[in-house]
Amino acid sequence: MARWQPDARGRLEAAALELFRERGFEQTTVTDIAARAGLDKRTFYRLFGDKREALFSGGKLLEEVVIKAVAETEATPFETVIAAFRRVADEIFAGRLDMVRVRQSVIEANPELQERELRKMGSLAAAVAAALRDKGVGETTATLATESGITVFRVAFARWVAAGNDASLTDLIIEVAAELRAVTSAPEPHSDLGQS
Amino acid sequence: MARWQPDARGRLEAAALELFRERGFEQTTVTDIAARAGLDKRTFYRLFGDKREALFSGGKLLEEVVIKAVAETEATPFETVIAAFRRVADEIFAGRLDMVRVRQSVIEANPELQERELRKMGSLAAAVAAALRDKGVGETTATLATESGITVFRVAFARWVAAGNDASLTDLIIEVAAELRAVTSAPEPHSDLGQS
Repeated sequence: MARWQPDARGRLEAAALELFRERGFEQTTVTDIAARAGLDKRTFYRLFGDKREALFSGGKLLEEVVIKAVAETEATPFETVIAAFRRVADEIFAGRLDMVRVRQSVIEANPELQERELRKMGSLAAAVAAALRDKGVGETTATLATESGITVFRVAFARWVAAGNDASLTDLIIEVAAELRAVTSAPEPHSDLGQS
Repeated sequence: MARWQPDARGRLEAAALELFRERGFEQTTVTDIAARAGLDKRTFYRLFGDKREALFSGGKLLEEVVIKAVAETEATPFETVIAAFRRVADEIFAGRLDMVRVRQSVIEANPELQERELRKMGSLAAAVAAALRDKGVGETTATLATESGITVFRVAFARWVAAGNDASLTDLIIEVAAELRAVTSAPEPHSDLGQS
């Protein structure tokens, strides 16, 4: 389990989130973050390039977990991607809903951070599709399975962080994957969509 | 039909694309574009805010066509989105592959234009999901149908502009939609879902 531990990295990430929420992203300095975590600036810069990194360093672990799960899962390409995101839900997000909600609210308040989050999702998608192709999956199928899986993860994640939710992220992923299957399944054979 | 016509807007868009390809986006001025189109700068600024707009003004028409088609189509939400993109293929893109290829190569060479293209796609997705909700479709279904439809369109579009393709965009949308259905269908397919 890669759950959050009270090590220097985790303490600095938690301190950064607290301060971003209390003061806003722009108004928080690396010195503030290090002080709140009971550490010094040198330790911060040993672990993170800048204060934005304290919000995004988890993306690398997430990508590693997803790619490893894709390589290890024996299922159809779409089921493989869904299984990989369920592993992420169990290994990275379980028990961290409060911190994730704070992180989301910080990112939603800052367009620059939103763009970075979008780019990270784009690079995750490229990595997942590449991992599927490495297993012999054709290019179009790899892209479609990856994009569909990421859509499921994004919708499930939004439900998970929404106020009032008490379902686990992994259960929400299963639920939304079933909904996607229902949404994209053929309505009936020979339906004519051409004219209206 | 909203096919390209040799009006001022169309002439300026075509001139801009030619010059962006010949000289690069940064090296082209509005004066150059107007001169190439046989028009003056004043006419350019009456139609476009800046030279980037000459690449992106089609997005508004695309969104209008998609939203109108979503409102008019009677089908499942996913089929509705697919039908809307087929209408876009027929009404906007048919016969314009050469210009679209030039536009793609200009955008791919410029990260700022890529980000703008991504943002436009995001705002199109929001508009399509809203149009589905206006028809009474639930929020999650609307999001899943929209994201799946946009994935189909993006993959079909990439195949359409790829070197060597000679299929029509509308046929590629039908083909990729069928592939998406197959990719996301339950792992044990029923015999009535079609050939595997």
